[in-house]
Amino acid sequence: MITCRVYRDGVLHEEGVDPERVSEHLERADALVWLDVENPTDADIELCQKEFGLHEEAVRDVRERHQRTKVDLYETYFLIVAYGVSGGPENLVEHEMHIFSGANYLLTFRFDPLFDLKNVLRRWDSQPEIVRYGGSGLLYVLLDEIVDSYFPVIDAFEEKAEDLEDDVFAEDVRPELPEELFRIKKGLVEFRRLVVPLRDVLDFLEEERGIIVEGIRPYFRDIYDNVYRALEFVDNTRETMTAALAAYQSAVGNQMNLIMKKLTAWAAILLVPTLIAGIYGMNFHHMPELHWLYGYPFALGLMFVASFLLYRMFKRRDWL
Amino acid sequence: MITCRVYRDGVLHEEGVDPERVSEHLERADALVWLDVENPTDADIELCQKEFGLHEEAVRDVRERHQRTKVDLYETYFLIVAYGVSGGPENLVEHEMHIFSGANYLLTFRFDPLFDLKNVLRRWDSQPEIVRYGGSGLLYVLLDEIVDSYFPVIDAFEEKAEDLEDDVFAEDVRPELPEELFRIKKGLVEFRRLVVPLRDVLDFLEEERGIIVEGIRPYFRDIYDNVYRALEFVDNTRETMTAALAAYQSAVGNQMNLIMKKLTAWAAILLVPTLIAGIYGMNFHHMPELHWLYGYPFALGLMFVASFLLYRMFKRRDWL
Amino acid sequence: MITCRVYRDGVLHEEGVDPERVSEHLERADALVWLDVENPTDADIELCQKEFGLHEEAVRDVRERHQRTKVDLYETYFLIVAYGVSGGPENLVEHEMHIFSGANYLLTFRFDPLFDLKNVLRRWDSQPEIVRYGGSGLLYVLLDEIVDSYFPVIDAFEEKAEDLEDDVFAEDVRPELPEELFRIKKGLVEFRRLVVPLRDVLDFLEEERGIIVEGIRPYFRDIYDNVYRALEFVDNTRETMTAALAAYQSAVGNQMNLIMKKLTAWAAILLVPTLIAGIYGMNFHHMPELHWLYGYPFALGLMFVASFLLYRMFKRRDWL
Amino acid sequence: MITCRVYRDGVLHEEGVDPERVSEHLERADALVWLDVENPTDADIELCQKEFGLHEEAVRDVRERHQRTKVDLYETYFLIVAYGVSGGPENLVEHEMHIFSGANYLLTFRFDPLFDLKNVLRRWDSQPEIVRYGGSGLLYVLLDEIVDSYFPVIDAFEEKAEDLEDDVFAEDVRPELPEELFRIKKGLVEFRRLVVPLRDVLDFLEEERGIIVEGIRPYFRDIYDNVYRALEFVDNTRETMTAALAAYQSAVGNQMNLIMKKLTAWAAILLVPTLIAGIYGMNFHHMPELHWLYGYPFALGLMFVASFLLYRMFKRRDWL
Amino acid sequence: MITCRVYRDGVLHEEGVDPERVSEHLERADALVWLDVENPTDADIELCQKEFGLHEEAVRDVRERHQRTKVDLYETYFLIVAYGVSGGPENLVEHEMHIFSGANYLLTFRFDPLFDLKNVLRRWDSQPEIVRYGGSGLLYVLLDEIVDSYFPVIDAFEEKAEDLEDDVFAEDVRPELPEELFRIKKGLVEFRRLVVPLRDVLDFLEEERGIIVEGIRPYFRDIYDNVYRALEFVDNTRETMTAALAAYQSAVGNQMNLIMKKLTAWAAILLVPTLIAGIYGMNFHHMPELHWLYGYPFALGLMFVASFLLYRMFKRRDWL
Repeated sequence: MITCRVYRDGVLHEEGVDPERVSEHLERADALVWLDVENPTDADIELCQKEFGLHEEAVRDVRERHQRTKVDLYETYFLIVAYGVSGGPENLVEHEMHIFSGANYLLTFRFDPLFDLKNVLRRWDSQPEIVRYGGSGLLYVLLDEIVDSYFPVIDAFEEKAEDLEDDVFAEDVRPELPEELFRIKKGLVEFRRLVVPLRDVLDFLEEERGIIVEGIRPYFRDIYDNVYRALEFVDNTRETMTAALAAYQSAVGNQMNLIMKKLTAWAAILLVPTLIAGIYGMNFHHMPELHWLYGYPFALGLMFVASFLLYRMFKRRDWL
Repeated sequence: MITCRVYRDGVLHEEGVDPERVSEHLERADALVWLDVENPTDADIELCQKEFGLHEEAVRDVRERHQRTKVDLYETYFLIVAYGVSGGPENLVEHEMHIFSGANYLLTFRFDPLFDLKNVLRRWDSQPEIVRYGGSGLLYVLLDEIVDSYFPVIDAFEEKAEDLEDDVFAEDVRPELPEELFRIKKGLVEFRRLVVPLRDVLDFLEEERGIIVEGIRPYFRDIYDNVYRALEFVDNTRETMTAALAAYQSAVGNQMNLIMKKLTAWAAILLVPTLIAGIYGMNFHHMPELHWLYGYPFALGLMFVASFLLYRMFKRRDWL
Repeated sequence: MITCRVYRDGVLHEEGVDPERVSEHLERADALVWLDVENPTDADIELCQKEFGLHEEAVRDVRERHQRTKVDLYETYFLIVAYGVSGGPENLVEHEMHIFSGANYLLTFRFDPLFDLKNVLRRWDSQPEIVRYGGSGLLYVLLDEIVDSYFPVIDAFEEKAEDLEDDVFAEDVRPELPEELFRIKKGLVEFRRLVVPLRDVLDFLEEERGIIVEGIRPYFRDIYDNVYRALEFVDNTRETMTAALAAYQSAVGNQMNLIMKKLTAWAAILLVPTLIAGIYGMNFHHMPELHWLYGYPFALGLMFVASFLLYRMFKRRDWL
Repeated sequence: MITCRVYRDGVLHEEGVDPERVSEHLERADALVWLDVENPTDADIELCQKEFGLHEEAVRDVRERHQRTKVDLYETYFLIVAYGVSGGPENLVEHEMHIFSGANYLLTFRFDPLFDLKNVLRRWDSQPEIVRYGGSGLLYVLLDEIVDSYFPVIDAFEEKAEDLEDDVFAEDVRPELPEELFRIKKGLVEFRRLVVPLRDVLDFLEEERGIIVEGIRPYFRDIYDNVYRALEFVDNTRETMTAALAAYQSAVGNQMNLIMKKLTAWAAILLVPTLIAGIYGMNFHHMPELHWLYGYPFALGLMFVASFLLYRMFKRRDWL
Repeated sequence: MITCRVYRDGVLHEEGVDPERVSEHLERADALVWLDVENPTDADIELCQKEFGLHEEAVRDVRERHQRTKVDLYETYFLIVAYGVSGGPENLVEHEMHIFSGANYLLTFRFDPLFDLKNVLRRWDSQPEIVRYGGSGLLYVLLDEIVDSYFPVIDAFEEKAEDLEDDVFAEDVRPELPEELFRIKKGLVEFRRLVVPLRDVLDFLEEERGIIVEGIRPYFRDIYDNVYRALEFVDNTRETMTAALAAYQSAVGNQMNLIMKKLTAWAAILLVPTLIAGIYGMNFHHMPELHWLYGYPFALGLMFVASFLLYRMFKRRDWL
């Protein structure tokens, strides 16, 4: 599905432009064209290549999908591949977009699951001061929304991470914890794979002169800050989760010691009276105690006293 | 709440200036204006933007709060976001500040919990030789106090870290230790997140010519040294805490061995006499010992001797 | 075995050229020569050295084989050593190639196991627009196919890695898992050794002016992206496998706790009735229970009740 | 305590110069002044600041002590903070020095515990060829002695590290080892904190033109080599100690397996005859063995044979 | 012991030259002098310093020995310290050499254990095309042989590493493995210490113009490749050994679980019949089974059945 809009002087001039006549609009210096293709077919791509005059290799990336986040510089335009994100640690969803940014146009290819452009359109239509910067202006708003899509995901990660931290040090060790710590770390690795190259992309756009319009630079810096914050979060959380797993392992070791101590203590408490019973179960003819009137209660008492003393000793040493 | 002061020739000239008339003061070449806003409202921000002529993006940062530590360079001024710190490993408190530094003014936005400026004001009022450097001079004192706020926090971390180290190798393994080691490491990660970008900020101020007044450079270098020391501390302590956790894990493993040895030893010491008792509890008709006059004491003696020999053996091998 | 082809104007002009007359073709400006040697003998190498005028050191690399991935720049040509890959985590196969690339020739030495050039030839014969770039054009297609050979291998690694992840957290801990995690990590280290220097090679070809023909640069960038993606995969998978082993270790520790708990619980459940039996096996003359009519069922009942209560207690505490 | 000496033409000219008249000597082009202050009082510092014309910030460092190793460049001189070292892994002692180096003077502030200058003085008095290089010459000898003080410390670390390594793999696992490995690692972290910035300081002195006299450069390179060697040692030892702790943990795990095997084996060896005794302790009326003449020896024999067979089996499987 | 040879036009001209007359030869533009000193005495060093005009600091390195691998640039010559290697993981032997390389001489100091120059001499005498490059030519052959000495050592490491890998996952865990893995890692750290700076040395020789003769550059690049390969091997093996130790620890943990399962299973299998025996050993007057004719076989059967059922259950659950 192709959508096409033309802005003039920062304001929406025409919606639903015929994509086959885009090149006519592009010729007007004061026009700013945005063309969006959802899940492009080969025909769509060919049409765009013709209308915008795109390089064969750039178009091949669109055809193949699944590109890594990057910026490729061509003579009069550049191609950015970027990913919006939604979901959370268990179900991270990536929204691939290929964005061609020229002086007076922005060409976007979006792939399923589609990144939602509602906010982008709303901001384009209401911020003429930014749209006036031309292609760079449109690009800024789009990238800003893409990066803003990171933060709900980060919040979901953060919440999950904090839940796990609490569980690590809970009384009773949850055996599923290693798996959950692993899953969140894996999710962070995936997320990081999308974000790290975007930092380089933004760095490149900001550093290299003549790529984005001068006046819009502070706005891009703001996106850069957000990407940087996202990365900082990812790296700190990864480190924290690693530390949590290490602490969990120690907690497991500790718990094993506690169990072993209990085992040892109870074994002693049960084996000592068993030994006493064994002794008075011996069949010697001459065992004076056996003939005592209170021999039996004496033996039971002996067992009880021995067990109780052991119990108290273990209790005192914190083995029980 | 807005506070405004004007210095002239390094000396306090007027306190409680009307913020709406700041721009008049700014026009005087020999005036140095400091304006501080606590928890700025939208109206406060708008006022400042008008009076000081601030860029839209810079002001957006103030509105949004929760920025990362950074420096953003604008044409005639720069914006520094920095965090004072208080509390300790368990309750690290961050005091966010947005600082606009121009040639002859310093504009500070402080957010709850407010960073205390008492010392800053005292130094401004008593060090004319520094205030004479203009905006850079005021900024130096402010940043110096911000960085000085790190060291009581570092001391608290250090104390806690040393307590934990002692506990790691104490006789009886404390089961809460992994959690405490984890908490201190997490606190260090948070602290580090505030300090690392500040080092880059100071590096930038020092390296880039024409940002701070030339003569004040050695003073900024001193702040840089302090930030560097803070980071050194954070990194060394993180490493030490990681090593402590590893050592703790070994200690837990060692203790388990000790417990297992004890278990094994006591099991043997109890099971051998139980076996003897079992033997003399057999019902064979022809068991000569059973008829001995001293059969019973003999059996008890046998049990005692066997247990004692085992006990001595285990003792000698250090299993008990 | 030597194969030689001559292209003119991007189109195949002659197949099965006599290798001894290659230098004649090389003199024609419009000719593009490809010469391929499978498992070169000393005679083959000497012939090529003479025909193409190769440096002694470059030729020595061919003789010795087992070179690392690299690019060596000589005056009018450069030598690339690169490895195609096939197989998977358990049986990674490396296909060594030495590639001399001149302005109008490509000289390839292939070693057993031979890298299959079928696709390369098909693309050369069908993409005159690329072959027209001369030696750089041929080289592009060849390197592109070499890098494309990485992805089936990566898929095999990915599949294996995902299987292992599932196994790590399966109910019953597979004891072979550490070995398999180790094997896959070792495979990744080997694979990485081939790919990392190739990134540097492509970086060098792209950055350094005057090595590859200008117009083909975007094509090489595409290969670079693929190599980068391959490395990203390798690094992320290595990290994930390390995390999986750590999680596995925790799972093993957890399982040991479960076993110990079971051992402790069953020992108690069996030892308590054993003690009771021991008590009623004592030979005291005065043990009223022994004379009860229902003493025996009473004792059995006591045993059963004690065991049952213990069982319920352990069950409730999740020790069983 | 202040000491002051004047050299002329590489040779000691006057000892015990009055510090208040240092500025007179400094005016003579051919004089080389060394002034040393032990534990400077405020008066001492003020005197030096006046005589040598030092910057306020530089002097503030001296007042505050506890600076990190660094070099600060001022207009006509530079300040180096460096630490001599003595003691060993358990008792690392740091000797703080602040060194001002000008064209024709060296001003040293030493703090308790004082770094011993005996060797420095001896070398100054006996190496006129170096002292002729002026302030740089004196500085070279001083830094050389400071760095030389690292090596006895390194030797102490090395000896301790080697002892620990041997202990890690000794027959009987020493439970104090994790603590000792931790202590040595902590000592290395501390030592490293002193040495790393010194490498940067020396790098700076060597790289930056016009700071040290040209001809003395090869001498400084030699100090740099020594610092580099010290760092190499620290980093390698840290890595080795980490590896040793990991190996120790495996050794502990191994030992636990051995203990568990022994426990299992001995439990079986004792429980089987106990069971036999239990069987012949049953009170069935019809148990033919009980009536055998040699029933008792038979039962004992049975017990012995069963235990012996188990013993042999466990021995053969290396469980005992 | 001093050896001295003079080459002219790439060919050996005179052997056994009197070292005291070396400076005469050095004056001839077409002469190429090689002088070698084994375990130099102070007199030897002094002689060389005089004949070749060496700097005091350079000579001090020779006197002190035990320098780190490095290159020091002097005005007309440079000093390389490099180490040949022999032996293997358990007995790594380092052969220290100090090499002074001038335009028309090579001066080598070798220390015990001496690096064998047989191959170097053979190649000098048979490769006039290289020796014609002068001092750089001689140096190339020497460094090439030094680096070639790495590969037998690497092979020994590789063989040992592969043996250890097999052992890690062998049926029965070898308790010496952690020590052996530690030893090989320590050996790699030592080896790496020698090789890393050599890479920098070769990088420096290749990058810096005017140090080695232009035409010999490709030959040095070849040595660089070999050093790079050696480092790659060291780093990959270190990583692999670390992964092997981690896998070993998991294997130890697994084995412990197996042992614990066996212990639990056998304890149950023995304790259940013991309990039955205990029951029938009770002395109640009214125990019907005791009077049964087949009570005894019944009890034995009960024991056997219970044990057998337990055995089968544990076997099925893979606990035995």
